[in-house]
Amino acid sequence: MKFEGRNVRVSPRAKIGRDVRIGDDVTIYDHVEVGDGSVIANGSVLGEPPAAYYGAKEFENPALKIGARALIRSHAIIYAGSTIGDDFQTGHRVTIREQMQIGHHCSVGTLCDLQGHAVFGDYVRLHSNVHIGQKSRLGSFVFIYPYVVLTNDPTPPSDVLVGPVVEDYAQIACMTVVLPAVKIGRHALVGAHALVAKDIPEFQLAVGSPAAPIKDVRKIAARTAAGEAHYPWPERFKRGMPWAQQGFAEWCAQHGLDEFGSPRKT
Amino acid sequence: MKFEGRNVRVSPRAKIGRDVRIGDDVTIYDHVEVGDGSVIANGSVLGEPPAAYYGAKEFENPALKIGARALIRSHAIIYAGSTIGDDFQTGHRVTIREQMQIGHHCSVGTLCDLQGHAVFGDYVRLHSNVHIGQKSRLGSFVFIYPYVVLTNDPTPPSDVLVGPVVEDYAQIACMTVVLPAVKIGRHALVGAHALVAKDIPEFQLAVGSPAAPIKDVRKIAARTAAGEAHYPWPERFKRGMPWAQQGFAEWCAQHGLDEFGSPRKT
Amino acid sequence: MKFEGRNVRVSPRAKIGRDVRIGDDVTIYDHVEVGDGSVIANGSVLGEPPAAYYGAKEFENPALKIGARALIRSHAIIYAGSTIGDDFQTGHRVTIREQMQIGHHCSVGTLCDLQGHAVFGDYVRLHSNVHIGQKSRLGSFVFIYPYVVLTNDPTPPSDVLVGPVVEDYAQIACMTVVLPAVKIGRHALVGAHALVAKDIPEFQLAVGSPAAPIKDVRKIAARTAAGEAHYPWPERFKRGMPWAQQGFAEWCAQHGLDEFGSPRKT
Repeated sequence: MKFEGRNVRVSPRAKIGRDVRIGDDVTIYDHVEVGDGSVIANGSVLGEPPAAYYGAKEFENPALKIGARALIRSHAIIYAGSTIGDDFQTGHRVTIREQMQIGHHCSVGTLCDLQGHAVFGDYVRLHSNVHIGQKSRLGSFVFIYPYVVLTNDPTPPSDVLVGPVVEDYAQIACMTVVLPAVKIGRHALVGAHALVAKDIPEFQLAVGSPAAPIKDVRKIAARTAAGEAHYPWPERFKRGMPWAQQGFAEWCAQHGLDEFGSPRKT
Repeated sequence: MKFEGRNVRVSPRAKIGRDVRIGDDVTIYDHVEVGDGSVIANGSVLGEPPAAYYGAKEFENPALKIGARALIRSHAIIYAGSTIGDDFQTGHRVTIREQMQIGHHCSVGTLCDLQGHAVFGDYVRLHSNVHIGQKSRLGSFVFIYPYVVLTNDPTPPSDVLVGPVVEDYAQIACMTVVLPAVKIGRHALVGAHALVAKDIPEFQLAVGSPAAPIKDVRKIAARTAAGEAHYPWPERFKRGMPWAQQGFAEWCAQHGLDEFGSPRKT
Repeated sequence: MKFEGRNVRVSPRAKIGRDVRIGDDVTIYDHVEVGDGSVIANGSVLGEPPAAYYGAKEFENPALKIGARALIRSHAIIYAGSTIGDDFQTGHRVTIREQMQIGHHCSVGTLCDLQGHAVFGDYVRLHSNVHIGQKSRLGSFVFIYPYVVLTNDPTPPSDVLVGPVVEDYAQIACMTVVLPAVKIGRHALVGAHALVAKDIPEFQLAVGSPAAPIKDVRKIAARTAAGEAHYPWPERFKRGMPWAQQGFAEWCAQHGLDEFGSPRKT
């Protein structure tokens, strides 16, 4: 329905894998590599040339590498110059700028704005309309909800950027701002409408503007199992997660991780 | 000017009403129904196939029904599988996902992101960049201002979603988050930059993060009539409202409603 | 790469300057004027007809005037009826409505939503996803960061709009709401995640919801020069600024301005 080959423009210098479906009105520029089995839906632009292109006499587009089985929804703009792992998914109208390193199994929701020069681990999930400033570093299994902004300049304007760090399994609820250089610890949960101005220790629920830890997330009751805790969330949530089959505890054991999914300290 | 028939793609399985104007670069997929007298502006996509489409061997697009006299501004994406009433208007680049039930005379501003599986009454007005989570329920004459987010998961991530309820004539000012399951009463007004964590009683002005009621809206002075109150707002504002001709009081009387526009309790 | 002339539609009633590059899938409607040396990247729409167009039998598009050396990134929608100075830049997918007066050297980031009927001085920089309500007035050298909303209706809904005023060199950090009619003084800095409900005096750092002044910005240390202050920021930041060559102090002297870049009081 979407894949009728109308107005598709693929550079002869792009490498398109096997069984890739390319939607109508898609543009793929030079040096884009799309992995096998991917879907690039209608109106998307892959390999958007960075700013240098506009002024350059001679311009060589940087490489954009997207792994296997991507599902890029319609009207994405993904710049040249990034590396994205396998099983990547996007919503509509995402903007992903240059120099992103994105791991495997990540997803980026509708209208997300990734400013480039940032690093994501695996299984990062950004819901709609998340803004990731340059120099941000996200671990794996990080969930960020709508209208969250990660910033990077403590004394604006300046040319000295320092991004936040969000550790594995941490979550940031919607409409929250994370200030530059702040670290959010593993399995921490930042509540909605917070301003994170200081580091949040691991496993803490932090709320408020400015945000302060108020309790251990492991004391938050599950809604689906009386008397049990909802957190650490991987014990309760498995949709799309690598422990979907065997459960989190066994998955950790199989991978030599501690009970919270982190490498054992030795 | 916009309706030159360039690159228009309308499925033969769509039903387009009389006197419908379809802009350049519009795509209308299977089983979309557009009511008489509608305008579908350039670059819009109606009947966007939901996620199941990408993996399916055989796929039948769900129906999208849009009523009469719609004005869909450019670059809208409206999924298959929703029902939208008459006199619908949108700004640019809205995204409206599947399983929405939207009443008559509603409008949805530029960049709004409706996640689907939600119910709107009539005369709902969303300004720019409003995010409506799944399972939200909005009454009629609800006004929501820019950058408001309605959420649905009290213990993220989980698979148990429970949306907020916003009653008739309520308003939510910009950059406010409404937490899951919260109810905002009729004629309530939530101030800008609030976090609504508890129910807001009817007629209350609530402000802050977390939001608390601070006074009855009927004590807020009108700026255009000395000594009078601005609220209930339907007494002061009629642009586009069904009481535009006769005024709110008479409209209520004619429709057997109480003085605040609600059904009389019997 | 982007300028192959595919699906370009330029009205014969538009005036395109010399050395203008127009990207694929660009639409330029009647009475648009684009200055010399500009770049209009792919998928942009210039001269979008305002609301009156849809109902009119006879319609004459208002003029849109864009100065020299503009760089409009992809998928911009800029309405007819505005005036924009030289050296204008945008990110992707901006929406700029009618009756904007924008000075020279301004930039407007990805997903910004300018509602029209507002005035900007020169060297205004809006980062991504800034929402400017009608009737806003911004001076020159104003920096606004992501997800800031400038509002205009103290008693919504109403038809009496009164916008905020942001004076020269002021800055507003991300996720902040500025309430109607508020004035933010020159060189003031509003912190992230604030609600500006009262005027902020010049040179004050204001934070919180509601925002209150907490100190003079000139007491904030520079990170790049021990023992010195970062503010007034023009002394530390010159990228893209008119004082890039000679420094701010000399630039002020050359232009007969006081040490803070303002006209001398006489």
